[in-house]
Amino acid sequence: MKFVNAAVVGAGLVGSGWAIVFARAGLSVKLFDASGDIRAGALAGIRRSLADMADHGLVEDVEAIAGRIEVVDSLVEAVRDADYVQESVFERVDVKQAISLEIGAAIRDDAVVGSSSSGIPSSAFTEKAPRRSRFLVVHPVNPPHLVPLVELVPSAWTDPAILPWLREAMEGLGQVPIVVNREIEGFILNRLQGALLNEAWALFEAGLASAADIDRTVAHGLGLRWSFMGPFETIDLNAPGGVDDYARRLGPLYHSIAQDRHNPKPWSEDLIARVAGERRAALPASELPARSEWRNRRLMALVSHRRGQPEK
Amino acid sequence: MKFVNAAVVGAGLVGSGWAIVFARAGLSVKLFDASGDIRAGALAGIRRSLADMADHGLVEDVEAIAGRIEVVDSLVEAVRDADYVQESVFERVDVKQAISLEIGAAIRDDAVVGSSSSGIPSSAFTEKAPRRSRFLVVHPVNPPHLVPLVELVPSAWTDPAILPWLREAMEGLGQVPIVVNREIEGFILNRLQGALLNEAWALFEAGLASAADIDRTVAHGLGLRWSFMGPFETIDLNAPGGVDDYARRLGPLYHSIAQDRHNPKPWSEDLIARVAGERRAALPASELPARSEWRNRRLMALVSHRRGQPEK
Repeated sequence: MKFVNAAVVGAGLVGSGWAIVFARAGLSVKLFDASGDIRAGALAGIRRSLADMADHGLVEDVEAIAGRIEVVDSLVEAVRDADYVQESVFERVDVKQAISLEIGAAIRDDAVVGSSSSGIPSSAFTEKAPRRSRFLVVHPVNPPHLVPLVELVPSAWTDPAILPWLREAMEGLGQVPIVVNREIEGFILNRLQGALLNEAWALFEAGLASAADIDRTVAHGLGLRWSFMGPFETIDLNAPGGVDDYARRLGPLYHSIAQDRHNPKPWSEDLIARVAGERRAALPASELPARSEWRNRRLMALVSHRRGQPEK
Repeated sequence: MKFVNAAVVGAGLVGSGWAIVFARAGLSVKLFDASGDIRAGALAGIRRSLADMADHGLVEDVEAIAGRIEVVDSLVEAVRDADYVQESVFERVDVKQAISLEIGAAIRDDAVVGSSSSGIPSSAFTEKAPRRSRFLVVHPVNPPHLVPLVELVPSAWTDPAILPWLREAMEGLGQVPIVVNREIEGFILNRLQGALLNEAWALFEAGLASAADIDRTVAHGLGLRWSFMGPFETIDLNAPGGVDDYARRLGPLYHSIAQDRHNPKPWSEDLIARVAGERRAALPASELPARSEWRNRRLMALVSHRRGQPEK
């Protein structure tokens, strides 16, 4: 299957990031959003992101990349010739169901449709869609043009031939795809994030450490190795005999820790207010947008740094 | 309290790393190990680490730093004049108990003794030690001269005046200390790591993804942001209204995910063998040492990169 024409449905932050991913790799991109205001502003936002990326040496010719992205006024026009459609609309089942019906009715028989859904399996919103075997979840990390990981999650009716093709196609775009073998709530990424978050909230709730100190534990401790190798490789290198040596030494500790959390509670309103209180004392709400820009600059600098590093 | 003379008891990888941390900051370091072979090789290993660090621009004068480290032949000689003692012997309760008795008998009344224990609270091995109010856990990440996070964990009998002094002293060394307000198994860092690891093993056991794909999810996804900001700040920037907005949107998903894990099982021998099988197919055991050297080079390059980045 060829991969020349891409469509993006939903032109918010995630959809705009996908448009950059496709156009950066040389594809022609048609971008649609149901909101005329969002359509009108999309290309300007994309140009700003590309200019920032150029400042960090991540792209060269901003105009050439932006020039491959066309904002179109109808969903049908966006998707009818596409080899691949990335759906990035608001994450609510009914919204995803409605857009999947529209997309399925308009695509070619051999097109593939990936949804940016971060937690809802595609079987929950593609069951009644025309050509439903062409749909799956293709979940990026925000923003997709800076963080390369992509989760491919097929439903029970996704054509299995799509997976090897899409894995290779995503690698060709410079993304790092993984395959989740069957649907599970939260997929892999948000389940891993959720496990760490649940422990972080529980430690804060028990008064064991401040949110700032828990954040430092990751930002100046755990997160350094995890920015270039995963949890299995990390422990594989942390015992002389490798991962099995490590698991036999430390498995009992981790099992004991897990048993403390056998009755998980929701994050209560009171707990949320206490964490939010500490965060707002450290960073007023009015400074959240500037801090997000700092995060994006740090991510760009990190991505640039990673490019120069050997993988072995 | 002054902080001029440091002692390190136990000259393995962790103890040698601590010696570098102290000497790099200009302190005089006395280093002791019960093994004559380890004592004989310690300074050569430290010089190799310092030379690698110099190659990455992390230190300048290798000989001046190494020259501040003296390997001594007795524990008493190492600790008797020390302002601060870092104990880094093998992590087993009986071993830590015995060395704490010896250290407590030999130190000055106003010295502070930190244990590198990664999971055992100090109350389990300092109860009978002389001057037990001077002991606490000071848990680094391996290697301490590259990953700056340090957990300070007092026992019930640790003199509370030590904590503010030690937090400032560790910051003066270039480490990033956090305070764990009371003892808990695994402290903060390994509890967070354990939560993510337990989910990773469970996802692998259920056949949802390969160990390699789970590793990619962290190394090319979650770990990028976590290498410069912690989990609370990450979610604070991932919803327009901040952490409370995020918690209300996604708390129910994470609670639902946690409920899947209400009955945590130990990692079985069969499961360990399957993970180890995948890892050994990817990296033969004979290549573990070379891969650990790659990890250290990546860490050094990352630390060098981080130094040039603005914190806001």
